Amino acid sequence: MADAAALGACPVPIGEAERVLIGHGSGGKLTSELLERMIFPALSNPALDARDDHALLSIGGARIAFTTDSYVISPIVFPGGDIGELAVNGTVNDLAVGGAWPIALSLSFILEEGLPLADLARVIESVRRASMRVGVPIVTGDTKVVERGSADRIFINTSGVGVVPAGLELGSAQIRPGDAILVSGTIADHGIAVMAHRTGLELGDLASDTAPLHALVAALLRACPDVHAMRDPTRGGLAATLVEIAARHRLGIEIEEAAIPIRDPVRGACELLGLDPLLVANEGKLVAFVPAASTDRALASMRAQPLGRHAACIGSVVARHPTIVELATPIGGRRILDLPYAEPLPRIC
Amino acid sequence: MADAAALGACPVPIGEAERVLIGHGSGGKLTSELLERMIFPALSNPALDARDDHALLSIGGARIAFTTDSYVISPIVFPGGDIGELAVNGTVNDLAVGGAWPIALSLSFILEEGLPLADLARVIESVRRASMRVGVPIVTGDTKVVERGSADRIFINTSGVGVVPAGLELGSAQIRPGDAILVSGTIADHGIAVMAHRTGLELGDLASDTAPLHALVAALLRACPDVHAMRDPTRGGLAATLVEIAARHRLGIEIEEAAIPIRDPVRGACELLGLDPLLVANEGKLVAFVPAASTDRALASMRAQPLGRHAACIGSVVARHPTIVELATPIGGRRILDLPYAEPLPRIC
Repeated sequence: MADAAALGACPVPIGEAERVLIGHGSGGKLTSELLERMIFPALSNPALDARDDHALLSIGGARIAFTTDSYVISPIVFPGGDIGELAVNGTVNDLAVGGAWPIALSLSFILEEGLPLADLARVIESVRRASMRVGVPIVTGDTKVVERGSADRIFINTSGVGVVPAGLELGSAQIRPGDAILVSGTIADHGIAVMAHRTGLELGDLASDTAPLHALVAALLRACPDVHAMRDPTRGGLAATLVEIAARHRLGIEIEEAAIPIRDPVRGACELLGLDPLLVANEGKLVAFVPAASTDRALASMRAQPLGRHAACIGSVVARHPTIVELATPIGGRRILDLPYAEPLPRIC
Repeated sequence: MADAAALGACPVPIGEAERVLIGHGSGGKLTSELLERMIFPALSNPALDARDDHALLSIGGARIAFTTDSYVISPIVFPGGDIGELAVNGTVNDLAVGGAWPIALSLSFILEEGLPLADLARVIESVRRASMRVGVPIVTGDTKVVERGSADRIFINTSGVGVVPAGLELGSAQIRPGDAILVSGTIADHGIAVMAHRTGLELGDLASDTAPLHALVAALLRACPDVHAMRDPTRGGLAATLVEIAARHRLGIEIEEAAIPIRDPVRGACELLGLDPLLVANEGKLVAFVPAASTDRALASMRAQPLGRHAACIGSVVARHPTIVELATPIGGRRILDLPYAEPLPRIC
């Protein structure tokens, strides 16, 4: 298969035998390849080409952020949450990391015939509670039903609209060598909780970290208006976020593996399941790129928030080795962080 | 089962044996019942409670329309269009009938493992062309993949953002007795084309009417700024649109059946398939409620547009028999138009 970058400018012909693979939805290289080869070139426009988690629109003097996500997680109820809560929080977070205050969500269900209405009621109740928690209403929606076997229980799309305060200039293009890289707490909680649940592992205290990040982001921006960029490391985990930013903006990144907060049971489950926690999805964590001089202020503001208690500085952006994410291991070694071709965690979000 | 209206205020307990039925997605009474019983009461807020095809948001002085729709049509390619074109036009139309000029769309795919990439490429190309035709960019997106058998080929969600011009006050609450009811052209083309294709019927000249209505709407509003309300009669057809408006606003509606434009092959196919064309989905038609004095001007402005050539006045809103839609038949009879409990046309959009 050709390299994703080489495919970006001009779509190559599609072979008749080529098929959608599970890995195309994994957040790994195969996902990028699909997007770079088939979607971005066809639909190119300035907002889409920015390739952020949301698009920025200027409407009558206001700056509006607009984002969409479909949720196909299996099972629909998992330790620490369910697909309804995830669908609200995930879309709120895509807005929040762009510095947008969420103001309205849409909710679209695709339901499989035969789904117990009680299961649907539970999901709707989770949507209601998550929406109340954030204070953002579901303003419009849609419900479709497909035959038994044509979908897996419930799929949800939530799209969201938010407002970006005047003067705020956030985005991965603002990241500079010297920037500190912060995470708001422990990583890999969501993906590991779902995987362990699926495989029937009983590993004690595993739960998804699904949570809305808008208040944490607001606190960080109040303390440090000079934040350069934020991301929520979902599909593909922390690694996908860092590798993509390094590659796209030709920046070097250096991470101290020992500085990355990971809960012990999550680390244990990763070892048992043979998974690298850096590749595992998070659903309530923030990665922030801030000027080095603002590191302490940024960390203090995050740690003062319930969702940022375990915030940590995990590394920095460097001018050397552009496009490379280097990991300093606890035993003094160095390894280059790369994405698998197809990350082996399907339907985690 | 209880009456939908009685369930509206307070959700009744969900029985363990109750299941999602195909009819819950049909646009018939069962769909209303699901929404009134489980979704609207749980998520109630002023924008959602308006129950229009889009929500109206006020942001920094601008009036923003926001809408969402998931498309699960089977087959994904049908006479006259495919799921990609439908997904763009459908969401553009939900904005347009609210008087909003579409400015941005999102695009979210749920793909089934094993789908030929060539089929995906065809759909993306249709999305591209439809988006270019309307002049509205796809600004943000998402792609998920589920295992073989966990979805049916391709599902698409498109959400949309549009701007409503200052001063425009549209909505079904503006409809008054005396208003003329106009349709922009022939009805039932979309649903019949899909159904005939599915059943293998060879009935000649059947094709979906999928088309973007924004230019037709703009022309109508220029000619008649006093339009009271517009709808695009999709799932559940013209009947669902009229019955819902009559019931919600306690208005009477009288329709001349002979005045409703229907193409001969569509009428023939309806007879063969045993379908009432008034219940069949349209994907490029407008229903407009205008003051009686504006009827001729409104019809002339629509007929001057390619998509409005066959526009017709089909009836009027009346003060007598509130909540009832009465149909005058060509042979001088009268029948009350009602929705089936579960409309027998699954996955038509």
